[in-house]
Amino acid sequence: LAFDTMRWHGRQLEILDQTLLPGTCQYIVLDTVSAVFEAIQKLRVRGAPAIGCCAAFGVVVGVLEARPASANEAVESAVKSAARLAESRPTAVNLFWALRKMEAIAHGAAGLESAEDVIGALETAAKAIHDDERELCRLIGVHGSPLISDGAGIMTHCNAGALATSGYGTALSPIFAAHAQGVALRVFANETRPLLQGARLTTWELMQAGVDVTLICDNTAARVMAEGKITMVIVGSDRIAANGDAANKIGTYGVALLAQAHHIPFYVAAPLSTFDLEVPDGDAIPIEERAPEEVTEGFGRRTAPEGVQVYSPAFDVTPAALIAGIITEHGILSPPYGPAIAQAAKKV
Amino acid sequence: LAFDTMRWHGRQLEILDQTLLPGTCQYIVLDTVSAVFEAIQKLRVRGAPAIGCCAAFGVVVGVLEARPASANEAVESAVKSAARLAESRPTAVNLFWALRKMEAIAHGAAGLESAEDVIGALETAAKAIHDDERELCRLIGVHGSPLISDGAGIMTHCNAGALATSGYGTALSPIFAAHAQGVALRVFANETRPLLQGARLTTWELMQAGVDVTLICDNTAARVMAEGKITMVIVGSDRIAANGDAANKIGTYGVALLAQAHHIPFYVAAPLSTFDLEVPDGDAIPIEERAPEEVTEGFGRRTAPEGVQVYSPAFDVTPAALIAGIITEHGILSPPYGPAIAQAAKKV
Repeated sequence: LAFDTMRWHGRQLEILDQTLLPGTCQYIVLDTVSAVFEAIQKLRVRGAPAIGCCAAFGVVVGVLEARPASANEAVESAVKSAARLAESRPTAVNLFWALRKMEAIAHGAAGLESAEDVIGALETAAKAIHDDERELCRLIGVHGSPLISDGAGIMTHCNAGALATSGYGTALSPIFAAHAQGVALRVFANETRPLLQGARLTTWELMQAGVDVTLICDNTAARVMAEGKITMVIVGSDRIAANGDAANKIGTYGVALLAQAHHIPFYVAAPLSTFDLEVPDGDAIPIEERAPEEVTEGFGRRTAPEGVQVYSPAFDVTPAALIAGIITEHGILSPPYGPAIAQAAKKV
Repeated sequence: LAFDTMRWHGRQLEILDQTLLPGTCQYIVLDTVSAVFEAIQKLRVRGAPAIGCCAAFGVVVGVLEARPASANEAVESAVKSAARLAESRPTAVNLFWALRKMEAIAHGAAGLESAEDVIGALETAAKAIHDDERELCRLIGVHGSPLISDGAGIMTHCNAGALATSGYGTALSPIFAAHAQGVALRVFANETRPLLQGARLTTWELMQAGVDVTLICDNTAARVMAEGKITMVIVGSDRIAANGDAANKIGTYGVALLAQAHHIPFYVAAPLSTFDLEVPDGDAIPIEERAPEEVTEGFGRRTAPEGVQVYSPAFDVTPAALIAGIITEHGILSPPYGPAIAQAAKKV
């Protein structure tokens, strides 16, 4: 990849400011907990896995910022930083997971000799979270890329790419891998209203990698399929129920139905951490509703009448029956998903 | 209705500039063929029937602009104006129909005494096209409104309303009629990227009439259907082939497939002039491609990378097999559409 979503070197955290994409590709240094907090909250860094990694580094940043005189002071500032960062976004599961992990490391390091020892332990842990994330993404690419053959036309929705993770992404990882192997392929990226992650981010990162990508409006998906341009669909997921029903960005369910109508296989790519075995099926996944202004003023200028009613769910649920396979870091799960998911969960 | 889509008085053509809606409700005078051409091409006036009416008046505008000294000169400039206006947009059959009619009137008026006589004949013909159009829309409402019962949830795509016609619209006419009869109904308007006719125009004109309307992003249609909120879909059409395949705004075909998947009846509302018996099926309907900037620079601000490839067909084709009925001014056509359309065509 020609860019890093985030970098850690010389004990400094740098992130690619995604709010400036695609117009400007600018890295910013986050050298205080407040800066990390603001970056997550304002979506300068986004995508559940990327947020988790950024928050983990953010804990190290917080300790360095505090200049602790002892191991105890270092542990204390790590715990404080983690508590602060947990308030940055309310729903990202990976955020809380990463912060809990960093807190546990901090408490475990309480017996070490110096502040420097604690910082070293935290730094190692944050790097491990980041590296593990990269490896998961890489493995999703390894398992998914054989599905892509020469001449493939791949539709994707929203951004489940490198920018959303710290590696090659989930849905985009098999595409990057196949492209790197010299497979001739073409991607159609749905723009993904209301926030246009497909238009702003997916096209950008595929273009950076030299992948042939074409942007379409969401409502053009059916026509492109009817024209025979699409041979497969790959999307990411925010949460997958025990039966394989998959929640993802609004519009994904429609794409899955259109794919079915055109006999096009529809794949979900996600690490096993996305599975929520406590949720039996899609009906039990809560769906967040977004602010009407994202729809009515999405382009910086009002494009709908004042006072119009708006319905803007952030996600929809694709029933397991529409999914040809779920590409994970441990291989591709096939229907029936109930047993396949239960089996795979043992590997985590 | 509280507004006119276009007006003809004092031998002047005025249109409501729809590119400024919903923020500004402003009428502009079109006093040259170039201005009429530009208004059609830039979608200041839009919707197949409205384009037809506007082009018919445009021929009169062209003759007035030419200040012809004789009947022959008037006929000549009418023919020239019609030829010019036929280049403004490629898909809408009403445009060509109206221009052919105006040309026939011009040729028929060649024997008249003066330029003024020819202009008078053309003006009368254009007004008749406009008045007929209003009546057609009213009748589509009369025939379509019995399909709508209390508690209906109606999805529509793009704008096939009053703004697209010179009357109550096509797809929206049954809705206006049912609402006027006191039927409790709710409309979901797809925003219709890239130009947001649903967000800007359909919501606006339904709100003007006091109809309960909710705006959604195009990609939210499937979710809204899955939630059980939709009992029927009504859309307009730009051209219907002899077998019933219907071209309409991009996204319509996808909505039709989603409706089928949810067992929701999908209706097309269009006057008989929309039928093109010379086109055997949808494959033979030419599909206009729009400029990439409509997608990448939505409303004044760039939201996709420079140089990104864009595919933006303006229309798609819904196969006859997905259409539950075609609501016309002579009643509702049912499958099989081949014979039904051939029969109905005799009434024109």
